[in-house]
Amino acid sequence: MINLSKKIDSIKGFSVSVTSVGIKKHGRPDLALLDCYSPSRLAGVFTSNSLPAAPVTVCRDNLVNLSKPSRLALIINSGCANACTGKDGLIDCLRVSDSVASALNIERKSVFPFSTGVILERLPVEKMLLSIDDLAGNKNRSASWRDLATAIMTTDSFPKFISKQIVLSGRIVNILGIAKGSGMIHPNMATMLAFILTDVELSFQDLQLLVKDTVKVSFNSISVDGDMSTNDSFVAISNSMSGIKVSSSSLSEKKDWNIFKKNFMQIGLELAELIVSDGEGATKLIKIEISGAVSYEEACRVGESVSNSPLVKTAFFAGDPNLGRILSAIGASEIEGLDLNKINVSINDYLVIQSGLLARDYSEIKAKNLMSLEEINLSIDLGRGKACGKYMTCDLSYDYIKINAEYRS
Amino acid sequence: MINLSKKIDSIKGFSVSVTSVGIKKHGRPDLALLDCYSPSRLAGVFTSNSLPAAPVTVCRDNLVNLSKPSRLALIINSGCANACTGKDGLIDCLRVSDSVASALNIERKSVFPFSTGVILERLPVEKMLLSIDDLAGNKNRSASWRDLATAIMTTDSFPKFISKQIVLSGRIVNILGIAKGSGMIHPNMATMLAFILTDVELSFQDLQLLVKDTVKVSFNSISVDGDMSTNDSFVAISNSMSGIKVSSSSLSEKKDWNIFKKNFMQIGLELAELIVSDGEGATKLIKIEISGAVSYEEACRVGESVSNSPLVKTAFFAGDPNLGRILSAIGASEIEGLDLNKINVSINDYLVIQSGLLARDYSEIKAKNLMSLEEINLSIDLGRGKACGKYMTCDLSYDYIKINAEYRS
Repeated sequence: MINLSKKIDSIKGFSVSVTSVGIKKHGRPDLALLDCYSPSRLAGVFTSNSLPAAPVTVCRDNLVNLSKPSRLALIINSGCANACTGKDGLIDCLRVSDSVASALNIERKSVFPFSTGVILERLPVEKMLLSIDDLAGNKNRSASWRDLATAIMTTDSFPKFISKQIVLSGRIVNILGIAKGSGMIHPNMATMLAFILTDVELSFQDLQLLVKDTVKVSFNSISVDGDMSTNDSFVAISNSMSGIKVSSSSLSEKKDWNIFKKNFMQIGLELAELIVSDGEGATKLIKIEISGAVSYEEACRVGESVSNSPLVKTAFFAGDPNLGRILSAIGASEIEGLDLNKINVSINDYLVIQSGLLARDYSEIKAKNLMSLEEINLSIDLGRGKACGKYMTCDLSYDYIKINAEYRS
Repeated sequence: MINLSKKIDSIKGFSVSVTSVGIKKHGRPDLALLDCYSPSRLAGVFTSNSLPAAPVTVCRDNLVNLSKPSRLALIINSGCANACTGKDGLIDCLRVSDSVASALNIERKSVFPFSTGVILERLPVEKMLLSIDDLAGNKNRSASWRDLATAIMTTDSFPKFISKQIVLSGRIVNILGIAKGSGMIHPNMATMLAFILTDVELSFQDLQLLVKDTVKVSFNSISVDGDMSTNDSFVAISNSMSGIKVSSSSLSEKKDWNIFKKNFMQIGLELAELIVSDGEGATKLIKIEISGAVSYEEACRVGESVSNSPLVKTAFFAGDPNLGRILSAIGASEIEGLDLNKINVSINDYLVIQSGLLARDYSEIKAKNLMSLEEINLSIDLGRGKACGKYMTCDLSYDYIKINAEYRS
């Protein structure tokens, strides 16, 4: 494998158009159409919130009917979540989908809608409908991935997209990831919206497998504020434009599958990292590695507890090595038989807690300096077993309050 | 029953002494002795954190050996939690207990130690030992309940104590509650320390029953920041100085038992309310009533989810009726089959969400005005069943960050 690490300008079979219909203020772009015009497959996972937004309901329904590769379209708006809008919200969503379907001459069930923004508000459907023919028209297909990533932003401070070219069986293939999210980030589907596109041909089962495996180590392993949204969606779309097919079940394609899977998951992980580092008000990215756990689940429980602790997060914001808060958050995971004497904690490879106590040569000044860095690696060894897990979180600052107290104003 | 609502100056059989040994800065009181010199019973519940502080371990051990009413003592320090201090921390705790036991001429297992403050730091045992004879000496027993409540404060902005006199079978009996807590407040044992004392005679089983029933509706139903401490302890102590005995199992004492239980639980609830209203940086107390749930557990799940949502809490801080966040937090409780169309939400009896949508005559200005009050009643009707539950939380403000970023400095 050669990782070309090139920024992709385009992937064959996908085209983007973007506009502003006035959902967001100041004429900022807020509506995007992704036309997957080459026959494509789509797999996805969605929020487990019991009050899912209308577009989540529509996407789930569409997925059930998706039997073979076909022309698909994603219509994505920001500024309004179309969540908690009841039957009317569902009708709004379907009207927009219908309009896209009609403009592209495809079936409505091939149109996947996504919304992000304020909950409980209705979509300005009439305004949106007026723009859809333009979005679908050929002359507007020149938008870039950056434009798409920008159009789906809400409180995000920068657009989030990552692309990769890799070589499989001698041919260049493309993987592209786009995401939005900086608040309402909880370890259970921790993003508002994320999309990964590729021109590598995959079965629906393999695409679904990739989505599930990726979400586990990326979007389900990050925390900004412990809130879970009504609109969380992560979908992957593949066409066959690279001429390369990979499969988890074919022996001859196994090597390519492994390479592809690794890179696909890496894109998910990097998108998750971008989301956390753009966490509302975040000044620091904190990567947490838990080792010495009895099981992967146990490692995750500890990671989630530490990631979600406002007291740990404010200590990181202050650059204050109040290490007791980290130990307390580990204990708050309520693991039976946890033994303090076996716990080691390091910050950027500097041992701070050794066998449950301050390390012998511990220096508060050194710990303080390490905690003042913008990226911090927190390693927690539970000393119980061989399982590991990873989590990512950010610090909790004044700006989190500012952003969320002023969100609608 | 006549509720005399008098502030109690003293309860026979209990005496308090308080001093400052320099654990907290600026000579603030940080060590208190509560001598339960009349034969007493004690019951308690403690943190479920897997790394409990040394005093929690000692209290639990002592409880096992507590067979009959005897002279008991509580030694409580603030400023240092004696948590995550390993074997040495346990020895520190036992040395302090030994010293109290020796000064009062009682057994060590009759001394119950409590600590609250910074985790991972060692107790200044030598300094504490020097003060214990003074604390135990007769001339220092003049401290008030306010003094005790003040000595156990950490980030609390005011001392928390409530007292009640009620009449049972023609005699006046006393109940007194003292608590500390304003951060690290999670719905699972949501307090650092709370004590309820009474001069009504009770069996150990009844005292334990009162503690468990009280904690359920009070300290386990409040949330400030979703953090759970290493030191959470709630204990109740009863002697027989009022000459009144109540029992849950005796027919003749049933009426008195019911009156007493109601008042005892009320003290717990009011202490919990004081803790939430003193939540770190809190500007508003939010009382949440969940009705129309299928079960009490379901109501609590919704209450916990709404109470813990930073986005709901920042909206309340801003006085911004961003009601979608409340619905989203309800949905985040992941209740199967939850129907948005059946959900009603009121703020101080003003219907804001009707059948899942903005109420017909909803006025944003009116909602904003109601959300600007210092005490807010949020009613959530799930429209599914007959069960109810209550929760309390506070808003999330800049000062939460300030207090916790600067805690050790």
